[in-house]
Amino acid sequence: MKTIGYAAHGVSEELVPYHFERRELRSNDVSIEILFSGICHSDLHTINGDWGEQPYPLIPGHEIIGKVVGVGADVKTFKVGDHVGVGCMVDSCQECKQCKGHEEQFCSNGFTATYGSKDRVDGSITQGGYSKHIVVREEFVVNVPKQLDISKAAPILCAGITTYSPLKKWNVTKGTRVGVIGLGGLGHMGVKLAVAMGAEVTVITRSKDKLESAKAIGAKGILVSTDASAMEKASNSFDFILDTVPVKHDFNIYTPLLDIDGSLVVVGQIGAMEEPQTLPLIFGRRRISGSLIGGVKETQEVLDFCAEHGILPEVETITALEINKAWESLQKSNPAHRYVIDMNSLNL
Amino acid sequence: MKTIGYAAHGVSEELVPYHFERRELRSNDVSIEILFSGICHSDLHTINGDWGEQPYPLIPGHEIIGKVVGVGADVKTFKVGDHVGVGCMVDSCQECKQCKGHEEQFCSNGFTATYGSKDRVDGSITQGGYSKHIVVREEFVVNVPKQLDISKAAPILCAGITTYSPLKKWNVTKGTRVGVIGLGGLGHMGVKLAVAMGAEVTVITRSKDKLESAKAIGAKGILVSTDASAMEKASNSFDFILDTVPVKHDFNIYTPLLDIDGSLVVVGQIGAMEEPQTLPLIFGRRRISGSLIGGVKETQEVLDFCAEHGILPEVETITALEINKAWESLQKSNPAHRYVIDMNSLNL
Repeated sequence: MKTIGYAAHGVSEELVPYHFERRELRSNDVSIEILFSGICHSDLHTINGDWGEQPYPLIPGHEIIGKVVGVGADVKTFKVGDHVGVGCMVDSCQECKQCKGHEEQFCSNGFTATYGSKDRVDGSITQGGYSKHIVVREEFVVNVPKQLDISKAAPILCAGITTYSPLKKWNVTKGTRVGVIGLGGLGHMGVKLAVAMGAEVTVITRSKDKLESAKAIGAKGILVSTDASAMEKASNSFDFILDTVPVKHDFNIYTPLLDIDGSLVVVGQIGAMEEPQTLPLIFGRRRISGSLIGGVKETQEVLDFCAEHGILPEVETITALEINKAWESLQKSNPAHRYVIDMNSLNL
Repeated sequence: MKTIGYAAHGVSEELVPYHFERRELRSNDVSIEILFSGICHSDLHTINGDWGEQPYPLIPGHEIIGKVVGVGADVKTFKVGDHVGVGCMVDSCQECKQCKGHEEQFCSNGFTATYGSKDRVDGSITQGGYSKHIVVREEFVVNVPKQLDISKAAPILCAGITTYSPLKKWNVTKGTRVGVIGLGGLGHMGVKLAVAMGAEVTVITRSKDKLESAKAIGAKGILVSTDASAMEKASNSFDFILDTVPVKHDFNIYTPLLDIDGSLVVVGQIGAMEEPQTLPLIFGRRRISGSLIGGVKETQEVLDFCAEHGILPEVETITALEINKAWESLQKSNPAHRYVIDMNSLNL
C-alpha cells in the first residue's frame, strides 16, 4: 500500500514528508489508518543518534491510534472500523519465557521496535507512527475502549504504559507515598495513574512553577529539588519514586527521600547517570531499578484502566506541518503534556 | 572495671595497647570477657577516616565472642559462664518502627555502634572488641550455640550477618543462581551461607587463582570478571548478586549478568561508585540495592543457622601483637578468610 509519513533522512535532520510503501497484509496482519500519533521524547533521542546508529530514512512514532481498514485471513480479534492502538513494539519471538509470560518487552530474542527495527519476516526496516497507515501483526494491536477520546489517547501507548507498568510491578496502591520526578510527558501520566491507584503523589521538580499543573492532575503537592531544607525534611518520606528525567542526572539527590526498602525506578534516562553514593542504599536498604514500557497485555490493561478511571493524557494537538516545531520545543523544555499529531492534516 | 585494648590515637595511626575503664554494670548490662575478636575491613575504613572524623583514642572491633563474667540485676537471658557474641551495635532507641520490627540497624534515631558512638546513657564514646572486656546491654548480646567453635565464630557477628541478611531478604533458596563478587571476609561467608540455603553459587572475581578456594567452600565455580567473553556468555545468568567489594568500583560490569528482575546488592563499598549505565537496569528491570548488617534477632538467627549447617568462617588466628601486621595485609589484598585475634594473648 502506498502511503506517506514524516521521515528523517539522517542524524538530527528535520522531518520531511516521505512517500513509501506499507507491506501487503499477511494472514495475521491488521492494516490501520492512523488517526493520531503522539510525539515521545525517545523519538528525538533515536533520530538524534543518542541511542546508536539508525537506518535512514526513518519515520518515528510509537504512540499510535487508528482505525482498522483491513485484516488478514486469520485475524480474529479485530474487524474493519475498530479503533485500535499500537505502541512501541510490533513483533517478538512469541516463544521465549518472557513472551509466553506477556512481557514481550524483555523478549530473549529482542522485540521488533515500531520503527528502526528489522521486520522478522522480510527484513525490511520498520517505520513508525508519524504516517498515514501502518500494518501490524494482530498480537501487537490493542483495542481502544469506546470511553476514551481517541484524539487524546495516543500517549497512553508509550507514556501511559511506561509509567503504569512499574507502578503495578512495585505494588503502588491506596496510601502508597509516591514521588514522580519530572512533570513532562511521562511524569504527568505517572501522576494521573498513581493518583487513580489511590497513592499520595508528590511531584519532585526543579521548578516552583509546576505547583498548579501538578495539583490540577491530582498531586497533593510538589517538592522543589533545589530547596535543600525541603529536601532534607522529606528524607525517608517516599515508598516509591518514579524517575522520568530523560537526561543524565544524579541519583544521590533523590535516594535519601526513600523510606527503608523504598525503590526509585528510572524510566526516563537511557544512558549514564552521575556517580551514585552507596550510603543511602546501604543505610536504608533502598533500591534503584529501571523499567521498560510493558507487555502488550499490560498495554491493553492500562488502556482499560484509563477508560475506567476517566484518565486521558494532557495533549496539545498539532498538524503534521508543526512536527519540527514541536520537537524544538521538546528539546528546550519538558512541557507537562504530550504533542499529538492529527493525521488528518497529512494527505497522500 | 579496668581493662586493656588496642587503640588508634589518631587517623591511620598504628594500634597500640591502651588501658581504659569499662563502665560499671547497669541493671540491664552484661559484662563479657572477650575471648576472640574478628578483624573487619570496616575497622580499617573507620580508623583511616574514610567514613568521617572519629573520636580518638579509639578501639575498633565488632565481631566479638566472649564469656559472661557478670550480669546486671534485671538481666534474664544470660548468666555468668555463657558464651555470647556482640556484633556491630550495642544500643538503639528500642521505640521506633524499625527497632520494634527487629531491624535496629535502621533505627530512626540512629543505632549506637560498638565503637566510636556516643553511649545513650552517659555520652561516653563506645570502644570495640580489640579489648579484654566489654559491657553491653542485654538486648544487644546474642547466644553462641554450643556446636560452634568459639575460636572461629567471631566473624559471623559481622561478615556472617552482613551476607546472611540480604540472602534471606531477597529470598535466596534452593536453585537460586547466586553470584558473589569478591572472596574476602564477607564474600567467603556469603558463599558458605548461600550454598547452605541450596543456591547455585558462583564467585565473580578478577583473579583465576580463586578457583580452588571457591570450590573448597561449596561454590560451583568462578567467573573471571576480566574475561570479556566469559562475562558476555554469563549475561542474564544470575538471580541475585552479592557485591562485597570494599572499594569504589563499576556496577556496569556486573548488572548485565543479572536475569530479568534480578538484584545486585552492595554490602562492601560505602561511598561512591563509578557512573552507572541505566540501560541494563531498564532493559531487564534489574535492581541495585544495598543492605546493612542485620538486626539482633537476625544475628541470633545466623548463629543458629551456622550451628545447624556446620558453617564456620575461614579463620587465621593471630595474637594481639600481630594486629598491625594483619591490617597491613588487609590493605594490600583481600584474603579469603578473616583474621581473628585470640584475646588470651592480651594481658592486663
